[in-house]
Amino acid sequence: MKKALTAALILVAAISLAACGKLSFDSGSGSSTSGSSKGYTTTGTVDSGMYEGVIQNGRYKTSSARGLQLSTNQQGGNSFNIKSMENGLQDIAKKQFSTSKYVFEEGQLISTSTAKKWLARKSDDSQGLNPKDNGKTGETERNPMYLETMVEQDYMTQSGSDMSLGGVAIALGMNADDYYQKEKYGATYTTHISDADMTTQGKAMAKEVVARVRKMSGVNNDTPIVIALYKLAGSDSLVGGTYFDYVVSKSGTDVADWTPVNQQNEVLPTVDNKKPINKTVSTDFDNFTTNVENFFPTLAGVTAQAHYSDNALTGLNITINTQFYGATELNSFTQYVANAASKYLPSGVKIEITIQSTQGIQAFVSRESSSKDFYTHVFGSY
Amino acid sequence: MKKALTAALILVAAISLAACGKLSFDSGSGSSTSGSSKGYTTTGTVDSGMYEGVIQNGRYKTSSARGLQLSTNQQGGNSFNIKSMENGLQDIAKKQFSTSKYVFEEGQLISTSTAKKWLARKSDDSQGLNPKDNGKTGETERNPMYLETMVEQDYMTQSGSDMSLGGVAIALGMNADDYYQKEKYGATYTTHISDADMTTQGKAMAKEVVARVRKMSGVNNDTPIVIALYKLAGSDSLVGGTYFDYVVSKSGTDVADWTPVNQQNEVLPTVDNKKPINKTVSTDFDNFTTNVENFFPTLAGVTAQAHYSDNALTGLNITINTQFYGATELNSFTQYVANAASKYLPSGVKIEITIQSTQGIQAFVSRESSSKDFYTHVFGSY
Repeated sequence: MKKALTAALILVAAISLAACGKLSFDSGSGSSTSGSSKGYTTTGTVDSGMYEGVIQNGRYKTSSARGLQLSTNQQGGNSFNIKSMENGLQDIAKKQFSTSKYVFEEGQLISTSTAKKWLARKSDDSQGLNPKDNGKTGETERNPMYLETMVEQDYMTQSGSDMSLGGVAIALGMNADDYYQKEKYGATYTTHISDADMTTQGKAMAKEVVARVRKMSGVNNDTPIVIALYKLAGSDSLVGGTYFDYVVSKSGTDVADWTPVNQQNEVLPTVDNKKPINKTVSTDFDNFTTNVENFFPTLAGVTAQAHYSDNALTGLNITINTQFYGATELNSFTQYVANAASKYLPSGVKIEITIQSTQGIQAFVSRESSSKDFYTHVFGSY
Repeated sequence: MKKALTAALILVAAISLAACGKLSFDSGSGSSTSGSSKGYTTTGTVDSGMYEGVIQNGRYKTSSARGLQLSTNQQGGNSFNIKSMENGLQDIAKKQFSTSKYVFEEGQLISTSTAKKWLARKSDDSQGLNPKDNGKTGETERNPMYLETMVEQDYMTQSGSDMSLGGVAIALGMNADDYYQKEKYGATYTTHISDADMTTQGKAMAKEVVARVRKMSGVNNDTPIVIALYKLAGSDSLVGGTYFDYVVSKSGTDVADWTPVNQQNEVLPTVDNKKPINKTVSTDFDNFTTNVENFFPTLAGVTAQAHYSDNALTGLNITINTQFYGATELNSFTQYVANAASKYLPSGVKIEITIQSTQGIQAFVSRESSSKDFYTHVFGSY
């Protein structure tokens, strides 16, 4: 662990890619540096809103705790949670660590074995952040596991040929529903955790995590540490969870100024007469669906993940399942979908539409929130 | 059949989408016309190099012989052939029917039952285009099935509120290897057909097809009919076949001025010491692969379909199979791939790179032949 970090802090040869705009095509861009066995370089970027990633010796630096989320329990197995938690943490980190100044690196501080210890229950000689087992098994009587998973991201700064740790962002994945068995291989029970309890517990854990990370090798007294609290979606959810609070520890054990995060996710169309978060968005989506489903005889269904931030829609990921026989049908359908999307779907929102058949993705249509035009791509074959 | 065609020729209400540039967002664009049960409209287009498609009563007009290719035999089941045959026919048609003047419609002239008759063997009272069964079963003695499948595409012209047939394009899918059984459910044998025989047979069949189509309702004496000859790839091929000849019948039964088409497809990397079509392209691809495979620990393989036209590389479809655990890893990898592609892959060529895991497509990177910049997209989730 310490070794990996030391390596991460060793002097580096030239890093030449500028983190702005389109890819630059100068010779040497993004290439691994020669002559040094510790050669660092970066991935390059195609968008000023994205971080470059650290490459060491031509290889991407994966996280020390890589894949940990997958092994913890059922909720970790909900891949929507994992993707949304990682991307969401990066979005929060961007407020603190500018993409033009910082380079992204998968978390190197918290190793898999350390994370496992932290995610465990507290006992006399353990580092567990979850409460002690009180011996009870009733849904409302037992002490639930509040903390389910963690994600660490490192933000590196470059100075000349140096690369050093400029900041750390850690997400604590909190259970809204803690699934457990009373006996091995037995039935699964659920302890529901209120938002208030989740927040109290998460904030207390954040304090402890900052204190521990602050002592780690490579972390200075004034290295900013961002801790963000994430509410995991249930294991049967078709959309991931959301962040609800974050704090920046500027130095020492300071963990005070919490900033609330107002995010909501939903799946459209809503089922079981569930009230949609926003009636206008839901109606727009229904109109789009009706228009597209009328268009083609063999459409199997249209669903969407909607994401709200501060009560405003910020993104829609739409999936259209269909069965096409021909390439030309698909071309026409894709053009039609782009047209219908621009007509029926809300403007100023990031939209991604994937058109799938049983053979996988066939085409996709997307628009950035700042753009008026839809990009379309039909996957080709020779 | 006749009814469908008649319908296709009936007067239409306003068609307002211009077939140029970005989608236009005027109200009414691409919408179905009201008040007429025969309402025609078009799909709209996002690219001046693409055709708009015909929509009737809000529904896409599918082909009369839709899905026919799938049912004929094993080669039809090679989905690479189907996609490449349809797209390739449209490319050839573009030389004759400008995308700014013509609207695309799936073939409406040749119905499924007609196509089945034409694809059969000749007999005294049949319309079969393939030769009579000579009763022999030896690979080199029997009369093979030369014609395996057909694709029809219609090109419509708009005049005021009318839409009428402006041209027809038909592809004849020819067997290079005719697979057959000597007895029902028996072993599969193969009759190899030489390029010379394929050409002679295809050209003779084209003459017959033009004569028959010319007599169909809705086709005038001077409606241009394009016939293109396609050599199907074998059933185990990982890339589709290629066109080798086409002709435009300007009027009557004229089928004379054949234009050779020089296309080649290959899969990279080549296997079994097969010599690549172009050594430079193959080396570029190998360098790209090595660079990308070194980058990430868990890369399962990189393959490509390469397409050559007149001995020059015109397109590369690359597939990268991998297993990622995290969204941020995928973001970095995608940026790195775009960078490596711009560095190692040939310029001035259409490139499409899909990054897949066992869960399906994760990201893609593409560049049009005329562009210097790569477009990247990582599929999101909330």
